[in-house]
Amino acid sequence: MTTAVAEATLLSREEIEQAHERVRAYAHRTPVMTSSTFDERFGAKLFFKCENFQKIGAFKFRGGINALSQLSAEELARGVVTFSSGNHAQAISLAAKLLGTRAWIVMPRTSPKVKVAAVRDYGAEIVFCEPEIESREKAAAELIEQTGAVLVHAFNDRRIIAGQGTAAKELFEDVPGLDLVVAPTGGGGLVSGTALCAHHFSPSTRVIAAEPALADDAYRSMEAGSIQPAVSPPQTIADGLLTQLGDLTFAVFRRHVDRVVLVEEDEIVAAMRLVWERMKMIIEPSAAVAFATILSGKLEVRGLRVGIIVSGGNVDLDALPWMV
Amino acid sequence: MTTAVAEATLLSREEIEQAHERVRAYAHRTPVMTSSTFDERFGAKLFFKCENFQKIGAFKFRGGINALSQLSAEELARGVVTFSSGNHAQAISLAAKLLGTRAWIVMPRTSPKVKVAAVRDYGAEIVFCEPEIESREKAAAELIEQTGAVLVHAFNDRRIIAGQGTAAKELFEDVPGLDLVVAPTGGGGLVSGTALCAHHFSPSTRVIAAEPALADDAYRSMEAGSIQPAVSPPQTIADGLLTQLGDLTFAVFRRHVDRVVLVEEDEIVAAMRLVWERMKMIIEPSAAVAFATILSGKLEVRGLRVGIIVSGGNVDLDALPWMV
Repeated sequence: MTTAVAEATLLSREEIEQAHERVRAYAHRTPVMTSSTFDERFGAKLFFKCENFQKIGAFKFRGGINALSQLSAEELARGVVTFSSGNHAQAISLAAKLLGTRAWIVMPRTSPKVKVAAVRDYGAEIVFCEPEIESREKAAAELIEQTGAVLVHAFNDRRIIAGQGTAAKELFEDVPGLDLVVAPTGGGGLVSGTALCAHHFSPSTRVIAAEPALADDAYRSMEAGSIQPAVSPPQTIADGLLTQLGDLTFAVFRRHVDRVVLVEEDEIVAAMRLVWERMKMIIEPSAAVAFATILSGKLEVRGLRVGIIVSGGNVDLDALPWMV
Repeated sequence: MTTAVAEATLLSREEIEQAHERVRAYAHRTPVMTSSTFDERFGAKLFFKCENFQKIGAFKFRGGINALSQLSAEELARGVVTFSSGNHAQAISLAAKLLGTRAWIVMPRTSPKVKVAAVRDYGAEIVFCEPEIESREKAAAELIEQTGAVLVHAFNDRRIIAGQGTAAKELFEDVPGLDLVVAPTGGGGLVSGTALCAHHFSPSTRVIAAEPALADDAYRSMEAGSIQPAVSPPQTIADGLLTQLGDLTFAVFRRHVDRVVLVEEDEIVAAMRLVWERMKMIIEPSAAVAFATILSGKLEVRGLRVGIIVSGGNVDLDALPWMV
């Protein structure tokens, strides 16, 4: 284990508190929503931490603003670059705008229209690439060479992990005594931040990572004890969860995540639709993956107090999964 | 003006406070949401009072529970009957369930599936009728004769008006200094309750009724100085706003409502979609009518603090207006 990894697994209580100070200067403190219908149905108490109501419509703003807030004046003058399937792109774009710096975003050409349009609205420059991970990394590296901009990775970065964790920190502050917290995993930034926050602020809470069965690299990585590659090209509707773990997030997973629960595509769509219908909230497929573990019965919650990180609400309203 | 009408226009501060005590024993205190994107765009401060997050997904629960909470044991033993295009039906069904009484609901056979299913879920009995107002009233009268049940009218009832007003009362408590409040009008219960609350609790706030141009009876009634009949059959997408004013609500409109602003169908759909996209909230077409007055520019809000009562979020997700 490298030194960087060892430090990440021990991201201190103070580091997360400092991240929260930086994040809350810009981000919404999002509400925690409940549903008595769901609580009756599952025999549990479910608490939805609504990052779909966060700026840019997703938790990713927390990590983005935490990372960019720590750049030096010299770095801010050079600008930032990142690659992202969507929400991190919006997060860096808005954070760059708020902090008065320039952002280049490498996006897969398959990104939902609504996400591409939002990045443009924030004034960032978009460079399209193929959906595969190698293509994104190559395009970003080329941009850095051309521009001298600073790379802000979407999840394998201590500043990003600390920022994403602040959603769980607020949830623990608002709802004491949670038995479980469930969050979706792609690259693992949200789950890692959540797990480190549980470790420091709510140590009796177990952290569950929810993952699409069609993009099950985190599950396989935990089984194998080493980072397993993402399915390529990934076919899941959960378009925010296509990437594989990084060395930092995998180290946190091994130490602080209870387990990874897999869900099928139809379970994701059913969970998404049920939240729309009953809670009147728009959540994106990637966010529905967490609730899908409960709705499908794959995560047993009877008698428990359960936090669910609703990771985002950026959906193309012209292409809903139940429309054919 | 009859005595009943004179009293309604003067529904006292104490009566509304008592209604709020009854309502808050069962209802959610719904959040007030804001959007910095919208505030920048309109040069105003907009405050969305989110009754789409209320029990049954609409403000109507407030009036229903306030009315049924005041029934005697003898009346509760007989049960209640009402006619409704949807949300009032759910409100009475749930209120009846919570108070342990029986409910018969006369619903137009054209009601959205999601609303019919929800009423069934709450255990009420449904009697279908034709969409025209006369058909509903006839069916309800027959039921009362057969069952001895107590009629709870959807809007032309002091208890209902007082209950609906409690949403605005909470908004005034949470957001002082509003210049305007906008709410959609069908039968006028929500707008009347809002206007009476403004009168008692925020007298400098002007109250605007928002109405579809294709169901413009409230607008025509205010122009004519007498209640004008609803368009029949009404063609608007705002299926919660089909009925005409009653004598009680019309009396409140004349005395306490600043004016009625009409919006077109495409403006309603655009407002609905923009709230879904930007605020990640599901609002129904009837609820979108209020924001549509602002989005269309028909209500000038620049420089103002504006409350918007988001009346409900019950939508048939298989039949969205932008899908063809």
